[in-house]
Amino acid sequence: MILTLEWTPDGVRFIDQTKLPLEESYVLATTYQQVADVIVTMVVRGAPAIGVSAAMGVALGAKDTDALTTEEFAPEFEQICEKLASTRPTAVNLFWAIDRMKVLFLRLQGQGASLDEVKQSLLDEALTMYDEDIASCKAIGAHGADLMPDDGGVLTHCNAGALATCGYGTALGVIRGAVERGKQIHVYADETRPFLQGARLTAWELMADGIPTTVLCDSMAASLMRQGKIKAVVVGADRIAANGDVANKIGTYSVAIMAKEHGIPFYVAAPWSTIDRATKTGEDIPIEERPAREVTHHGGKQLTPHGVGICNPAFDVTPAKYVTAIITERGVLRSPYSESLAAGELVSQS
Amino acid sequence: MILTLEWTPDGVRFIDQTKLPLEESYVLATTYQQVADVIVTMVVRGAPAIGVSAAMGVALGAKDTDALTTEEFAPEFEQICEKLASTRPTAVNLFWAIDRMKVLFLRLQGQGASLDEVKQSLLDEALTMYDEDIASCKAIGAHGADLMPDDGGVLTHCNAGALATCGYGTALGVIRGAVERGKQIHVYADETRPFLQGARLTAWELMADGIPTTVLCDSMAASLMRQGKIKAVVVGADRIAANGDVANKIGTYSVAIMAKEHGIPFYVAAPWSTIDRATKTGEDIPIEERPAREVTHHGGKQLTPHGVGICNPAFDVTPAKYVTAIITERGVLRSPYSESLAAGELVSQS
Repeated sequence: MILTLEWTPDGVRFIDQTKLPLEESYVLATTYQQVADVIVTMVVRGAPAIGVSAAMGVALGAKDTDALTTEEFAPEFEQICEKLASTRPTAVNLFWAIDRMKVLFLRLQGQGASLDEVKQSLLDEALTMYDEDIASCKAIGAHGADLMPDDGGVLTHCNAGALATCGYGTALGVIRGAVERGKQIHVYADETRPFLQGARLTAWELMADGIPTTVLCDSMAASLMRQGKIKAVVVGADRIAANGDVANKIGTYSVAIMAKEHGIPFYVAAPWSTIDRATKTGEDIPIEERPAREVTHHGGKQLTPHGVGICNPAFDVTPAKYVTAIITERGVLRSPYSESLAAGELVSQS
Repeated sequence: MILTLEWTPDGVRFIDQTKLPLEESYVLATTYQQVADVIVTMVVRGAPAIGVSAAMGVALGAKDTDALTTEEFAPEFEQICEKLASTRPTAVNLFWAIDRMKVLFLRLQGQGASLDEVKQSLLDEALTMYDEDIASCKAIGAHGADLMPDDGGVLTHCNAGALATCGYGTALGVIRGAVERGKQIHVYADETRPFLQGARLTAWELMADGIPTTVLCDSMAASLMRQGKIKAVVVGADRIAANGDVANKIGTYSVAIMAKEHGIPFYVAAPWSTIDRATKTGEDIPIEERPAREVTHHGGKQLTPHGVGICNPAFDVTPAKYVTAIITERGVLRSPYSESLAAGELVSQS
């Protein structure tokens, strides 16, 4: 199994996703600031993975504090949480994870817990979130497997795989779930410009599992759909609003439009931590603009003319009307999402 | 003005489009085989430009022959035409140009023209086609300018500019025509994976003309459309079938679907030589599959895992129903295209 991130006695260890697939190297973040850096530079990426990374960052910050008491640590705890929360704006899992650490801290503080108890509890919580994330992915895979074709092509965009989570993946979890049931899936992986998560990461982890995979440029998907090669689309999500609008990697919205135009089901697979009912619609989701260099440079080499304008939003919003179903660890949700998401909120995770 | 290609006493000189924009270098093809190579390797690309390149290649082959008479040259002429016709399968301008040279040769042969006369006439014909191509682009620009918004964003895909023609461009000719009339156009240029004609070539030539340009990844266009930043789309074409189906650079079909979904007009700009009434529908247009390396390598560096499947069709077909109008040097054609194309056939080019 791919170890996307891992708590170690020396800090948090990440597989370096900026170097994959041709170089398998690791980065050890020994301070919470380094964890923040690793998130900003996309050494680790994927909404569920950065949520757990941030939780581990908080635990690491607590472990390293010079404070002597919980009260003395409290303002530093706030600072740690702020630093980690400022890394990326779109994936709600990041804020969800940090909030969960905050709730725990406030409870412990209220209970008069010692700083050692606080440190241990924060670490335990981060490790629990890690385990829960893998369990959620497996449940998503099991729920989603039914929706996959018995045989044929499935398109995915970006990487919502083991590398985007603590293991197994969300969209790729659905594909793994289907393959485990004996379905003959051929994955078409959008290369996913500009960061090439599809060409580099999805291709790499599916090949490691022996799942047949073809990489295509993002612009080629419509053509394959027209040829009947794609029977379903499954993608991950960075934030799902209360009405079912889905923020995900830039290009997802195009894929959804193309799927609709060709009568192909478009599925979103995400853990419940990606659902943000406090955000009413997709319009309210902040969309990160990433550095121009990701677009201008290819393999380290600039290929655009100097000084040209560059557009590089990291995400887009797919309106709920394009989404056939949302696959979560709590089950498969259908439209109207304002209702199914509200109902799902009441279901305790099994 | 950008010299995409040029007849010189020593051969045909091409600006090297694989090196632009960061290196402005030229390739001199001194034999017809080298002209063929230059087309295959995409040193020159763009349907109108490769048509005229092939015509010049034929003229160059004739110039270099060791034959002493027209009759002796005839089989070699066939060979030259075949070699040039085998370079790329989709753009019909290539076959149109070669056929025009063939018709001329047969006429001269029938008239008992001397080999020197044949050589001169073939060269004159190629030079005429060069001039006609620029004149067509300017006429396309004038006809299309009316269709452009008075101010706002216009999206284009690939490069249908001066670099895709003998000068001025088709889709970019329309934009140039609009700008010449004082319209305030901001061009959004799809980078156009995998060869990056948009990021490299469209951006470069529009910047040279001082036309405001923003480069985006192909996957970002839908998002900009949804934000209301795109008021029209204009693209070129590699072949237009009798029913109005349009083969153009891969990704064009996606752009057309997105435009439809957002209620944005989708225009195709092309000289009459791109219209192939002998091809009934888009289904009958051969689509070139290009080498996997164009997708796997970025800036010379491989970024996909070894051995993964790769898909690299160079073109796709946009069904006529998505095309708001076809802008030609003979005027603006509207649906039903089977009728407007048939009627246009009867119009002599002014």
